[in-house]
Amino acid sequence: MAEPMIDPLRGVLLTDFYQLAMAQAYFDAHMEDTAVFELFVRRLPASRHFLVAAGLEQAVDYLERLRFEDEDLAYLAGLNRFSARFLDHLATVRFTGAMHALPEGTPFFADEPILRVTAPILEAQLLESRLLNIVHFQTTIASKAARCVIAARGRQLVDFGMRRAHEASAALFAARAAYLAGFDATATVAAGARFGIPLSGTLAHSFIEAHDSEQAAFRDFVHSRREATTLLVDTYDTARAVRRVIRLADELKAGAATAAGIRAVRIDSGDLAVQARDARAALDAHGYGNVQIVLSGGLDEHAIEELLSAGAPVDAFGVGTALDVSSDAPALDMAYKLEAYAGRPRRKSSPGKATWPGAKQVYRERNSSGEYLRDRVVGLDEPAEGRALLQEVVRNGRRIAALPPLASIRDSCRAELLSLPPALRELGEGGHGYPVSISDGLRALAERLDAAQDRDA
Amino acid sequence: MAEPMIDPLRGVLLTDFYQLAMAQAYFDAHMEDTAVFELFVRRLPASRHFLVAAGLEQAVDYLERLRFEDEDLAYLAGLNRFSARFLDHLATVRFTGAMHALPEGTPFFADEPILRVTAPILEAQLLESRLLNIVHFQTTIASKAARCVIAARGRQLVDFGMRRAHEASAALFAARAAYLAGFDATATVAAGARFGIPLSGTLAHSFIEAHDSEQAAFRDFVHSRREATTLLVDTYDTARAVRRVIRLADELKAGAATAAGIRAVRIDSGDLAVQARDARAALDAHGYGNVQIVLSGGLDEHAIEELLSAGAPVDAFGVGTALDVSSDAPALDMAYKLEAYAGRPRRKSSPGKATWPGAKQVYRERNSSGEYLRDRVVGLDEPAEGRALLQEVVRNGRRIAALPPLASIRDSCRAELLSLPPALRELGEGGHGYPVSISDGLRALAERLDAAQDRDA
Repeated sequence: MAEPMIDPLRGVLLTDFYQLAMAQAYFDAHMEDTAVFELFVRRLPASRHFLVAAGLEQAVDYLERLRFEDEDLAYLAGLNRFSARFLDHLATVRFTGAMHALPEGTPFFADEPILRVTAPILEAQLLESRLLNIVHFQTTIASKAARCVIAARGRQLVDFGMRRAHEASAALFAARAAYLAGFDATATVAAGARFGIPLSGTLAHSFIEAHDSEQAAFRDFVHSRREATTLLVDTYDTARAVRRVIRLADELKAGAATAAGIRAVRIDSGDLAVQARDARAALDAHGYGNVQIVLSGGLDEHAIEELLSAGAPVDAFGVGTALDVSSDAPALDMAYKLEAYAGRPRRKSSPGKATWPGAKQVYRERNSSGEYLRDRVVGLDEPAEGRALLQEVVRNGRRIAALPPLASIRDSCRAELLSLPPALRELGEGGHGYPVSISDGLRALAERLDAAQDRDA
Repeated sequence: MAEPMIDPLRGVLLTDFYQLAMAQAYFDAHMEDTAVFELFVRRLPASRHFLVAAGLEQAVDYLERLRFEDEDLAYLAGLNRFSARFLDHLATVRFTGAMHALPEGTPFFADEPILRVTAPILEAQLLESRLLNIVHFQTTIASKAARCVIAARGRQLVDFGMRRAHEASAALFAARAAYLAGFDATATVAAGARFGIPLSGTLAHSFIEAHDSEQAAFRDFVHSRREATTLLVDTYDTARAVRRVIRLADELKAGAATAAGIRAVRIDSGDLAVQARDARAALDAHGYGNVQIVLSGGLDEHAIEELLSAGAPVDAFGVGTALDVSSDAPALDMAYKLEAYAGRPRRKSSPGKATWPGAKQVYRERNSSGEYLRDRVVGLDEPAEGRALLQEVVRNGRRIAALPPLASIRDSCRAELLSLPPALRELGEGGHGYPVSISDGLRALAERLDAAQDRDA
């Protein structure tokens, strides 16, 4: 693909108006010192015991490409809300700073910075809206996908959610986020083209209905495909459709084998566990133990767990809407906050939204088998045990090295999910707090800053 | 803007893999007859008494531009899953059919087709995934926005949700959908550039924190803006910040009036009603009754209603995450289903997902003051009272005429929302069913088709 089909990486105007207003004010006030901003989640949704960091690759792309083009500046000039001097300056703005970040696919918890930007304040401020927009979405989806992966106990998982994803780029990046968290494939063709994610797909009810008989539809579809196909069996009556699949399989076996054959049947409605068992029994009884069973239709991690706990014989799940919109937690309380400016720590003390001041690092301790024990959030200059999670990825506005390819992010995410304490891998709500401590140094610093604010009264 | 900054309208590969697999099978089986597909919502979320149709403009853009480019075909060829003959055919595919649709901004209900596509089956099938992706998202957001508009009782509403919208194009189109449903402005600059939506924005806590004093931050910001500004007053202590705003306003009044002045204060955390009252009282006491109060911070339609019911003196609300992800109902049970092929009605009878067969129309009856009384879904050839809601917008693959501009969609949406029965305008869940009847003719047809399926056993 010479040009990506959707390029959400252009578009420096995809930002909140106030970023530009503040940029002008920083410019007018000659505020050019270095700022440190950190991106973190204030608290986890009730139905999440951990989150999975995702979207870093696109975040870095965005930083590297940040640039106001002539057409952007012309639009802003036309608003008559910015000075010509400021717009001239904007034309020269590039991201020149540094970014530290959690590697994609790393589980994390509330209050832990997952990304730290260190740059002249105008640049660092300008990034806020789109950086959050990128990282928030993929992290939301990867976190949901990880729960499906845990629930599926090794069964194949396919992203079916494109149609109800929130518009074009959400569909594309939901496929990426789900794949890095352990999904096996996506139905979204553009995600195959853009990210090399394996593509999977069967057929829709409309194809069956357009034929005068279901048997003819199955036959047409199987003969058209170059690969072994999955046939959808719930358009009218699942048991009858499975008999038709068996009849077709018998035909294929008997005839000249021009078709690649039948790989699976898919059931998309009704009592999936009962129908899966009946289909499995019927297929096995006719010697088609190799034909797999794919289930779909409003599935989420809870439905997957219930089906497997009920012993449903299933080889793969298609997960759609619940994955692509993260239906039980479609947004995270994620923020990007100023922690230091001109070498001095800063702190917001708004009720319920206070921040821990200063540039920070997160250390994770593990037991001898690698299982997570506890995390500590500390000031950059404080000593700590364990492994530092935030790694430098951008320096002087450019990535230090290529970020890991998607397949290796996926491998390390799989290993990390297995290192979570077992209680965090349960799907139910509540009661599974993971210990994240804020250092005494940060607490003392926050108190000092609050006291200084009070003196400023 | 010479070129749109984000162009989700390109990208014919933004589809589900099975659409292409079915297209090849239709092609191989020489199925070239006309299909009728309808797009509808099976049932409303518990927290919606009506939905608002949106996204038609982008849906029509998509139909008109549907075209496989060389790079798309090269990618598909490389998958080795399609025949060369089929890919050659795909290169020639354009949308040549018709589309009927509800005008954008029209309220609708479950079981009512809001969009009908009539075209050769390969074309009509290919559209499914992206057409749903477009219409589902904007309809989801417009429906949420309409509830905020009703709750706000005429106060200004601004879309603040870009950062937590689901990636780039969701941010852009959420602004559009919210505006057409009655929002007054957006903070998303790209939506101003693309759709001409008024842009609104204030400043962030980081701007205040970067200054050594809040007073200096307010002064810098006000002097930098060409327009009267809104100052954020909850970074440290709201009451104190309001006193600082008053001090600055006094300075501006006393000094050479180089600054455009203070338009409003914004409160973003804590007890908004109490702080708004205190701020109002303090401003009024100093003669600044013209300085408005803007509230934000985790607001949705329920919070807006509570604030107004509590008598909070508020001029505008910023609504962010709850709007842009439609947090209580982030997806609709929206489907695009085959209703007829080759002149014969079709019906899926999957449990819980059965469809009403044949091409249909929706008629809406109103009382003498214009209030909605009831809707009827009928076969195209059946007589009915009231106004037919589905209008032809595309014929022979091209729009018949320009669709209404956004501002006039917004005007008609406002009028339609006022025509809803009062019970439907309440925000609580349950108990507000609106009468939508399915004609006897459609019911009889469905029974005939089911009987025919049973004979096919």
